[in-house]
Amino acid sequence: MLESFFKPKGVAVVGASRDPHKLGYGVVRNLSEYRYKGAVYPVNASATEILGFPCFASVSLVPDPVDLAILVVPADQVPAMVEQCGKRGIRHIIVTSGGFSETGPEGKLREQQLKQVADRYGIRLVGPNCVGSIDTHTPLNTTFVVGMPAQGDIGLTSQSGAMVAAVIDWARGTGIGFSRLISLGNQSDVTEREMIASMISDPHTKVITAYVEGVSDGREFMAVAEEAARKKPLIVLKGGTGEGGARAVASHTGSLAGSAEAYQAAFARSGVLTASTMEEMFDWARALAWQPLPKGNRIGVLTNAGGPAILAVDALEAAGLRLAQLTDETKSHLRPRIPAAGSVNNPVDVLAGSGPATYALALDALLSDPTVDAAVVIQAPQDWFLAESLAEVIGEVAANHKKPVLAAIMGMATVQKALEILHRKKVPNFSFPERMASTLKAMLTRRNWLDGHQDPPAVITGVDHLEAQQALQNQDFSRLLAAYGIRFPKTKPVADAKTAALMAAEIGFPVVMKLDSPDFSHKSDVGGVLLNLKSAEEVTQAFETITQMARMIKPDARISGVLIQKMMPKGHEILVGMKQDAQFGPLVVAGTGGVEVELIRDVASAIAPLSHQQAAELLSKTIAGRRLNGWRNIQPGDWNAVTEVIVRLAQIGVDFPEIRELEINPVLVLDPGNGAWALDVRGVVQ
Amino acid sequence: MLESFFKPKGVAVVGASRDPHKLGYGVVRNLSEYRYKGAVYPVNASATEILGFPCFASVSLVPDPVDLAILVVPADQVPAMVEQCGKRGIRHIIVTSGGFSETGPEGKLREQQLKQVADRYGIRLVGPNCVGSIDTHTPLNTTFVVGMPAQGDIGLTSQSGAMVAAVIDWARGTGIGFSRLISLGNQSDVTEREMIASMISDPHTKVITAYVEGVSDGREFMAVAEEAARKKPLIVLKGGTGEGGARAVASHTGSLAGSAEAYQAAFARSGVLTASTMEEMFDWARALAWQPLPKGNRIGVLTNAGGPAILAVDALEAAGLRLAQLTDETKSHLRPRIPAAGSVNNPVDVLAGSGPATYALALDALLSDPTVDAAVVIQAPQDWFLAESLAEVIGEVAANHKKPVLAAIMGMATVQKALEILHRKKVPNFSFPERMASTLKAMLTRRNWLDGHQDPPAVITGVDHLEAQQALQNQDFSRLLAAYGIRFPKTKPVADAKTAALMAAEIGFPVVMKLDSPDFSHKSDVGGVLLNLKSAEEVTQAFETITQMARMIKPDARISGVLIQKMMPKGHEILVGMKQDAQFGPLVVAGTGGVEVELIRDVASAIAPLSHQQAAELLSKTIAGRRLNGWRNIQPGDWNAVTEVIVRLAQIGVDFPEIRELEINPVLVLDPGNGAWALDVRGVVQ
Repeated sequence: MLESFFKPKGVAVVGASRDPHKLGYGVVRNLSEYRYKGAVYPVNASATEILGFPCFASVSLVPDPVDLAILVVPADQVPAMVEQCGKRGIRHIIVTSGGFSETGPEGKLREQQLKQVADRYGIRLVGPNCVGSIDTHTPLNTTFVVGMPAQGDIGLTSQSGAMVAAVIDWARGTGIGFSRLISLGNQSDVTEREMIASMISDPHTKVITAYVEGVSDGREFMAVAEEAARKKPLIVLKGGTGEGGARAVASHTGSLAGSAEAYQAAFARSGVLTASTMEEMFDWARALAWQPLPKGNRIGVLTNAGGPAILAVDALEAAGLRLAQLTDETKSHLRPRIPAAGSVNNPVDVLAGSGPATYALALDALLSDPTVDAAVVIQAPQDWFLAESLAEVIGEVAANHKKPVLAAIMGMATVQKALEILHRKKVPNFSFPERMASTLKAMLTRRNWLDGHQDPPAVITGVDHLEAQQALQNQDFSRLLAAYGIRFPKTKPVADAKTAALMAAEIGFPVVMKLDSPDFSHKSDVGGVLLNLKSAEEVTQAFETITQMARMIKPDARISGVLIQKMMPKGHEILVGMKQDAQFGPLVVAGTGGVEVELIRDVASAIAPLSHQQAAELLSKTIAGRRLNGWRNIQPGDWNAVTEVIVRLAQIGVDFPEIRELEINPVLVLDPGNGAWALDVRGVVQ
Repeated sequence: MLESFFKPKGVAVVGASRDPHKLGYGVVRNLSEYRYKGAVYPVNASATEILGFPCFASVSLVPDPVDLAILVVPADQVPAMVEQCGKRGIRHIIVTSGGFSETGPEGKLREQQLKQVADRYGIRLVGPNCVGSIDTHTPLNTTFVVGMPAQGDIGLTSQSGAMVAAVIDWARGTGIGFSRLISLGNQSDVTEREMIASMISDPHTKVITAYVEGVSDGREFMAVAEEAARKKPLIVLKGGTGEGGARAVASHTGSLAGSAEAYQAAFARSGVLTASTMEEMFDWARALAWQPLPKGNRIGVLTNAGGPAILAVDALEAAGLRLAQLTDETKSHLRPRIPAAGSVNNPVDVLAGSGPATYALALDALLSDPTVDAAVVIQAPQDWFLAESLAEVIGEVAANHKKPVLAAIMGMATVQKALEILHRKKVPNFSFPERMASTLKAMLTRRNWLDGHQDPPAVITGVDHLEAQQALQNQDFSRLLAAYGIRFPKTKPVADAKTAALMAAEIGFPVVMKLDSPDFSHKSDVGGVLLNLKSAEEVTQAFETITQMARMIKPDARISGVLIQKMMPKGHEILVGMKQDAQFGPLVVAGTGGVEVELIRDVASAIAPLSHQQAAELLSKTIAGRRLNGWRNIQPGDWNAVTEVIVRLAQIGVDFPEIRELEINPVLVLDPGNGAWALDVRGVVQ
């Protein structure tokens, strides 16, 4: 349905100009210069032709075929022009003009007006305040930006027009090809989601990249992103991840802010690869567009020099990849084929004097070795043979195998031709070998996400919904948790020693007894807490001790009696929390609990709802999770019970969006089989 | 003294060749082609001239002036040729030839031979197995590598010849200039230290960079590095930081391995800036060579587009820098000078339509603002004016201020000329603004190191050296610590109840009593440990209880009596350890103690000896240090006492290199004023 934005039959340029310094000239120039083959209709009342195209005084006079209009007129004329386009039967419009919601309240009103007109005619609208878009395969260039990238496999959608302009210039300089480049502008109608969807179905786009400052709807974005990721890699560069950056985003786009951790969790869940810089995004994009995914993390390194290989290995290991342990077969195959002083162990070093044939034999041997999941080929500059020959050889051998190959033909001055050959043969090259590591890691991350079974959320049974509703009305969060099957140790208030003994027997020994009075803030400091009481006698005695001591210290204190609670054994203290994210809804956090939460910051986040498997993976990312597996004299904890608490808290977040925050700290996790107990909870309701 | 390697009066090329495919030709070609102005003497018995230089049949026939020889002959001829050079009076030799210690035991022997001959004649020798070196200012190029970088301010010394070749080609491609490039080879004589020293005194070198796989002497390296860092920035890229990389280094150079953490600690101590990739090293080098250091971490960002500025701000914040809060004066100055829709808040956004004059005014305003320590100028590609104009303006304004300015004129195809202008004006440019952050951080790190007072090591008083020696002979590490004034809680063995009561009074109540018997491994499980005994009576009673209980459970057990120890209050559990590093000697580690050390890995390292200030800084890098400051209901700890323990343990490491490892875990750190106590120690002696 959005295809007319990329493959229109005819394009009207409303606000076309003869003045080469105006945007309305640039758009017509780009349509012409970059060989758009459909009809081009400049709309300009005072000119007869622009760049050889006859002009029309009004869009209503434009003949068929026309299914796309580009508006490059002052902001106040835009709504009227959209109306004219609507009457003319044009249903796709790119509004390049600025002066809308990005400029303040007046502009915001104008944008609403614009949207109303468009909706009335069923018009789909990109912008306003964008630089237009490019499809290199149509070819179509509706921007006013000088230059057009080569045809290629990478699609880009961007919330920043400047970024599109920068990428165009960079792509031309490096020769990296693109399929589509889309500037979204203010997204008054068409959003990043629909443009990502348009690239899912575009056969020329093999990898989708996106510069995102904020999304228009978190959950909808996740759905589209996951659909994309199932079919082709989706790489996102998120602007505004820090505090200052987020402030700048708010003033730049007015996007509804979600927290950085929620974005991260949502992206990971949906199979989005999150790049941290533009360079990284396009490093990854090239490799994912051109090379197959690795099956595992074992890398074979082929080099003609020690130093660069060492740096590559350092970077690979830092990224969690490792050197393949080559088979003896591979090593004996290599031994007679490389110089005697070279190394047949990984990294395979063919030394400075070896030529392209030696590289060919060694790379083929590495890729044939079942212990190698991906290969990296390094060449320090040498003077023995042309780097072009090596580029040919790498491309040819790589094409014969189904494993990814990345190249680092190092240098710059003497290797340009070699890089062109490599790129034509779809082997990504990196001037410095260290940069390959993050790329291989991204490829592996995608492979693991695709291979991971996508659990449905856990089925939560035994919830007393009526009880939960009532508990929430009373803001009684422990009761709410209980209604969802998250247990607190039994606690009962008793007013006299005899009832205390009976209640303790009912709860089961040993018990803890605490003074029940609003007038003592630190009960344990005044002897108001007695632990590990093991019999009715001890309980009776303790009741007297606690209440008498309190009366002695504060004769006027209000004393209701004593709280009796099951005495809990030692266990792991875990934090399990939930907060509603403005964009992505309930976000679950889990990690080390207790008072040191903010000191250690040992927490991980995930988007609710969760399966038990996902809950376990979440906690496993933290030190708390490693502790739960047992460590030296630390006993392992009850994983089943704690994951049950996590999935149930996640479900509360889904069921009650009005609970903004809910935090159990600590959850006491006992030995396997002995359960997990909420010891304290606090919540915030909207 | 090494100056003849860089500014020789005459150079003999032993092994010069007429065959363009041989290294011996490449060296003569480079001397000629890159305009070396001194005398060049090819030594070749079978040729009359090479590239117009008359040949000599032997080095003994070479006339004056000659003070440098380059040897490009087969390895087995090298020692004899060195001998000939020695007889001819040449005292500086670069041995390009390979076939020495890098090839195995036979080569190693040959290298020793070589060194002996050189030493006999007082010859200083670079290599063998290197690619030679370059001084662009002499100019002199003794390598066989094609190409020569432009003259510049950056010096490089490298343990990898391939890296030198790669940098030469990259430098030519990017136009980044160098002062010297030095390939060290096997370092049989001249080491990285002397070459770094040579660049300290070289007036053309403003920044020293080094690719280091291992150093030849850790402590000596630190001394030279610190001397360098006092005068000019020294940036090191360390190869072999990971496990696989370290293995590769060992096989590549045979360097004596120090641990990665020791290298890191030594570099930080000596003021070395540690880059993690080659790109980063040269990003930093350009900025440090060309721009002044910032006074603080407050950055002003000037941009013509929101998106790229947001990415820059994210990266700056992630690197620990922050946006300057501009003064009201600056903002009101800017307001009428930039478009109304632009932003006068940091990042200052002049929008797409502004020209170079607006940039000039805004950059001047930012740099004049006292709240701005450094400025970053971003330009997304635009079509309004030439990027060259902006480059001129940035260079001119930057030169008028004493604050660092980094530029990100984005793109590639249309901005080459602008980048040349910027580099000529010594403003480093980054195609993507994110890369500026690590550079600014490196500049600030250097500033902070230069500003930091370099404490002398703590003066350790009250050490009983004789006692320490004896304790070490008996491998009694608690006694050793005690001799150094590190205290254990008093512990006394007693054989009867009466002595127990007396001893407890002497130690001071409350005390802990533990069964003293080799036949019970878990004493507390059998009631063999009683805590918090507050009086002689309680102690007498406890003695009977403990010994009787033990006799009841195991009638045959050997029971010596009871150990009485001071009862310690609760406190912080800190790990303080020392291990001897193969390169850097005693390395002190400190951090979270207890059983979870390996689980949490909350430790930091520093090279001994330490001042109290350095000990405190070390611990402050860890979560344990943050805890020691107090946190919610966590009491602060006795910083004075714990830093005293750290400096004293460091001193033990210095005094006794034979102690390979010594670890106190935990050190119990009490409330301020109450001291720090070693509770357990283990050690390993060579």
